[in-house]
Amino acid sequence: MFALFLVSVVAEERRPVRWGILGTGSIASDFGRVLTSMRGDAEVVAVGSRSGDRAAAFAAELGLVGACAHGSYEALVADPAVDVVYVATPSTRHVSDSLLCLRAGKAVLCEKSMAPTAAEAAEVLALARERGLFFLHGVWSRFFPAMRALRELLSSGAIGDVTSAHVSFCQNDGAGSCSALAETGVYCAQFLSWVFGGEEAAVVGAVTERDRGSGHDTHVDATLRCAGGGVGSFECSLRHASPREAIICGSRGVVRVPYPFWCPTQLLVQPMGGAASQAFGAESETSFPLPDGPRGPFHFVHSEGLAYEAAAVHAALRAGRLEVAEFGSEECLRVMKLLDAVARFGAR
Amino acid sequence: MFALFLVSVVAEERRPVRWGILGTGSIASDFGRVLTSMRGDAEVVAVGSRSGDRAAAFAAELGLVGACAHGSYEALVADPAVDVVYVATPSTRHVSDSLLCLRAGKAVLCEKSMAPTAAEAAEVLALARERGLFFLHGVWSRFFPAMRALRELLSSGAIGDVTSAHVSFCQNDGAGSCSALAETGVYCAQFLSWVFGGEEAAVVGAVTERDRGSGHDTHVDATLRCAGGGVGSFECSLRHASPREAIICGSRGVVRVPYPFWCPTQLLVQPMGGAASQAFGAESETSFPLPDGPRGPFHFVHSEGLAYEAAAVHAALRAGRLEVAEFGSEECLRVMKLLDAVARFGAR
Repeated sequence: MFALFLVSVVAEERRPVRWGILGTGSIASDFGRVLTSMRGDAEVVAVGSRSGDRAAAFAAELGLVGACAHGSYEALVADPAVDVVYVATPSTRHVSDSLLCLRAGKAVLCEKSMAPTAAEAAEVLALARERGLFFLHGVWSRFFPAMRALRELLSSGAIGDVTSAHVSFCQNDGAGSCSALAETGVYCAQFLSWVFGGEEAAVVGAVTERDRGSGHDTHVDATLRCAGGGVGSFECSLRHASPREAIICGSRGVVRVPYPFWCPTQLLVQPMGGAASQAFGAESETSFPLPDGPRGPFHFVHSEGLAYEAAAVHAALRAGRLEVAEFGSEECLRVMKLLDAVARFGAR
Repeated sequence: MFALFLVSVVAEERRPVRWGILGTGSIASDFGRVLTSMRGDAEVVAVGSRSGDRAAAFAAELGLVGACAHGSYEALVADPAVDVVYVATPSTRHVSDSLLCLRAGKAVLCEKSMAPTAAEAAEVLALARERGLFFLHGVWSRFFPAMRALRELLSSGAIGDVTSAHVSFCQNDGAGSCSALAETGVYCAQFLSWVFGGEEAAVVGAVTERDRGSGHDTHVDATLRCAGGGVGSFECSLRHASPREAIICGSRGVVRVPYPFWCPTQLLVQPMGGAASQAFGAESETSFPLPDGPRGPFHFVHSEGLAYEAAAVHAALRAGRLEVAEFGSEECLRVMKLLDAVARFGAR
């Protein structure tokens, strides 16, 4: 209950949430820069790396004045000044590093993918719950205003009944070091779950390519059937390119979420209908500008939008909540189980 | 050998190919207008309908001066002035009407889908071969210059190794009267076969919705794995909308064939690569204008492009060939068998 105490301190003192950043890679840098733009809400009080020099260099590069540079992950999680740890280590370490943080009584925002399997994700989520600690699997997509707008758009019947959705997230950045399902497939699966309102989904087809050396999946195509009848398909890959957009088909039109669909700032809606659908309306566009506070240089596209996720963490910590509505533990597990099911199907 | 005699007459006399049009619906009208624009190459000498009045009205509307209006299909196929019949009746009649024409010694261009099953398609193709008659399943896509350019583009390695392709052809025009696989799925299947150079493909997943009354499939999602490892997926439906475009993914980029992909006039190529593919090049567009001879009003999009298909028929007849390279009987059967396999998979 130590953590709940911390949470309540954050809430009562109306002070910035004090972050520790675990890892000093590209995404740690982007998230750190975003946090520094949220002065008053957030403060980066510590950086942890397996090298103290690297932690110090990272803090210096980001201008994290007063942040403590820890030369081990253990030292960071033991730092009493830290309310919440951002786990930004390589994804193969996410389970052990999340457990390390939770055991030390720290709230956690863990970069995706939080775990290679649903069972390991469940273990992390269970420990957080047991310890009364906040935990969030950092599927930042869920916090973009365009995602809520998309749900409202679909619910409003703008494209009639939603019948299918198709997502691709493939990038050729040297496959083999990690799993496409875990790296980019997780974004596809969470997107489809969002479109179909968290309905249970069964895998009806999947193809998997694996890296011969590592055994990691490098290219996966999957088709899902949701409980309500909707069809979802996605393709993820670390060995080829794709448009990295999402298409949602309805009885009366189509919504396109263009690149980069996983951190969206644009929705395109096109009504379609009529005999042989030869006539259809013009595409209408709604834009959702990124927050203008955060300043790069950033390593990844739309990293400014990490501020949405950070704000959700801040709000939860201040309210003493252990999870967020946008991506709670139940939904997190549903997505992880779906990826497991795709992996099993592809292995047949 | 009567037909070969006719073919040789066409070749030797260097006269227009004499068409009979069977059926008076929307596509018959579009094709008829295109043929009238090809004066010197083509002449519509007869129209056949179950009603003589309707045949006459059709001929009058299209300004088919001198065309004979037949009040039965039997009369049209018996007309000695006709070299080749364009079968444009409702698709449920295509097998019986094609057989009728072939038995009467006529060359045939049959609108898609030529048959509900591969077995029935094989029966038609076998009769054409047996009688030494030209037969073409009217998958007009194959004759668009953009299709040949696409093949050359992929072969040139413009997007590296081709790893997957995704096609959608869904339109909400009142499902139930016919099969989505036969009506629009055939365009998807032939496109994927084109992209993967006619490789054999296995169905690895499919979902099928059926109309309760008619039993026709109204929405099908299918994933295929080609012999060379490429993955193809398509969605066809007669009950909802879709972008109706094709996406081809490669190791170094993406080709988009925008709406209407089945009668394409545009190729968009985007190179992609680099770490986490955060950097990628601008999309470059190549356009292939439609032939400017044909004049509407047309019922369907890009019907001007039916002239490409007609020209291929003319060339084959003049050369005494019984099929065309762009969509020969072997490839036709491969596509039909693929659709059969998808239907079987979806019925499991």
